[in-house]
Amino acid sequence: MINKITIIGVGLIGGSLALALKERNLAKVVFGYGRDQSRLEEAQKSNVIDAFSTNIKEAIDEANIVVIATPVGTFKDILDQIEPLISSNVIITDVGSTKSDIVNIVNDVLRDKSSCFIPAHPIAGKERSGFEVSDSKLYDGKKVIITPQEMNSPESIDVIDQMWKNVGADVDFMSAESHDNLLGMTSHLPHMLAFSLVNYLVDQNPNASIYAGGGFKDFSRIASGDAVMWRDICLQNKNQIMGHLKGYQSTLDDLLEAINDEDSEKLGQLFTTAKKTRDSWLG
Amino acid sequence: MINKITIIGVGLIGGSLALALKERNLAKVVFGYGRDQSRLEEAQKSNVIDAFSTNIKEAIDEANIVVIATPVGTFKDILDQIEPLISSNVIITDVGSTKSDIVNIVNDVLRDKSSCFIPAHPIAGKERSGFEVSDSKLYDGKKVIITPQEMNSPESIDVIDQMWKNVGADVDFMSAESHDNLLGMTSHLPHMLAFSLVNYLVDQNPNASIYAGGGFKDFSRIASGDAVMWRDICLQNKNQIMGHLKGYQSTLDDLLEAINDEDSEKLGQLFTTAKKTRDSWLG
Repeated sequence: MINKITIIGVGLIGGSLALALKERNLAKVVFGYGRDQSRLEEAQKSNVIDAFSTNIKEAIDEANIVVIATPVGTFKDILDQIEPLISSNVIITDVGSTKSDIVNIVNDVLRDKSSCFIPAHPIAGKERSGFEVSDSKLYDGKKVIITPQEMNSPESIDVIDQMWKNVGADVDFMSAESHDNLLGMTSHLPHMLAFSLVNYLVDQNPNASIYAGGGFKDFSRIASGDAVMWRDICLQNKNQIMGHLKGYQSTLDDLLEAINDEDSEKLGQLFTTAKKTRDSWLG
Repeated sequence: MINKITIIGVGLIGGSLALALKERNLAKVVFGYGRDQSRLEEAQKSNVIDAFSTNIKEAIDEANIVVIATPVGTFKDILDQIEPLISSNVIITDVGSTKSDIVNIVNDVLRDKSSCFIPAHPIAGKERSGFEVSDSKLYDGKKVIITPQEMNSPESIDVIDQMWKNVGADVDFMSAESHDNLLGMTSHLPHMLAFSLVNYLVDQNPNASIYAGGGFKDFSRIASGDAVMWRDICLQNKNQIMGHLKGYQSTLDDLLEAINDEDSEKLGQLFTTAKKTRDSWLG
């Protein structure tokens, strides 16, 4: 069993990992770090974490694994504080939803100590945030993508791989660039489309939503994502997101052309392909 | 109590109306018409309808209300058959998801008898179709939009208004043009975006969906809509849909510009507006 795992940032993602680790007895101590003493006290009372500190030195002292689970915008600050405290055998990992940008920050700040950092991204979440909605089953059957760096030791990668497998996740490996392209497409693009749809509708007719059917409500659910988080994702994954938005606009142009030409056959094909694809994804 | 209400097309929408009418004893006979004898037999056995015929004359004979609940592509044929059979006191209505196009067809076919036709659109549905998934509560609290024609008598409009109110719906009145613009925005546009998203993704990477989070799955659910129905809606509401797709592309252009400029403030504003709007729609 691992002696101590420290979670930096005990929100939904960090809290759910903490709960899952505790429930399966995967660490002697699951330790929380944050800036807000009262929030950490509440998280401990709710049995999400075993112990906590608002002092970073105390938090990572003798930790075997440190999981950074704060918004990516805070990474530089946190790594700056951690860098002088890194011992030879600690493994640091993260849960950030972009990877190339994070790897750049890590290499800038940790320099020759960067080999201890294993970049990872669990693809799981909820509409709500905060440790109160933590769920020990959040990662059950979910994908976690690890994007190893060249200098990572196989043993360190294996520790993080095992940690996620032990809480029920299905782990895949790919490059940071592939991750950012893939998530740019499957997550960032749909969020951009949903935010834009809501903004378009409210601009056209603020009362339109009362006539919206179930489909629209599903669609717009993801427009409730945290604005600061999504702003940061746009800045961190700028090129991939822009590429996918432009590619998507070409797809819309094809559809517009088919509608303009009243091309029944092409319209039928476009919608049949989409329906078949979508239904096959469900199967 | 109304003597006889005939439902032309006993699928999800027609079947749910039939069930709701029967459950609340709103008609002595709820009569089904369709082309497939065995399907109608099954619907009768399942108590969705009281009686049925595959003969249109028999179906509308002595009916007080005839509800056309077939795909809009079939309207001309059905109206052609009904036209010689229309008595002075029958009221005909529909459930089609576009209205201007239907009104044009009605006026072309029924000519001086068009005043008996009250155009209507219940905004309700399910992912699945067929009378087997009919639900007597489908219209509970849902919007029904009636788009009266100038020559409709207030009494006829009132009969259809009452029918929908009696099955639990909330009825609004507007022009056919306003309806088509509104639905083009709240229903047709999101469907076009979802179909296009699925097509873009499968074109880029057929396996991408395994890395898709919950948000994407919600988003793509509506891409499972019936391809033929959506093709017809595109043709029937061509101008409104094209207008909204172009307007939406402008909104995407604004977002692309903000990402390209790394304009944190504007990105934060765009996402905050969308989130606040969306959350207010839920309230």
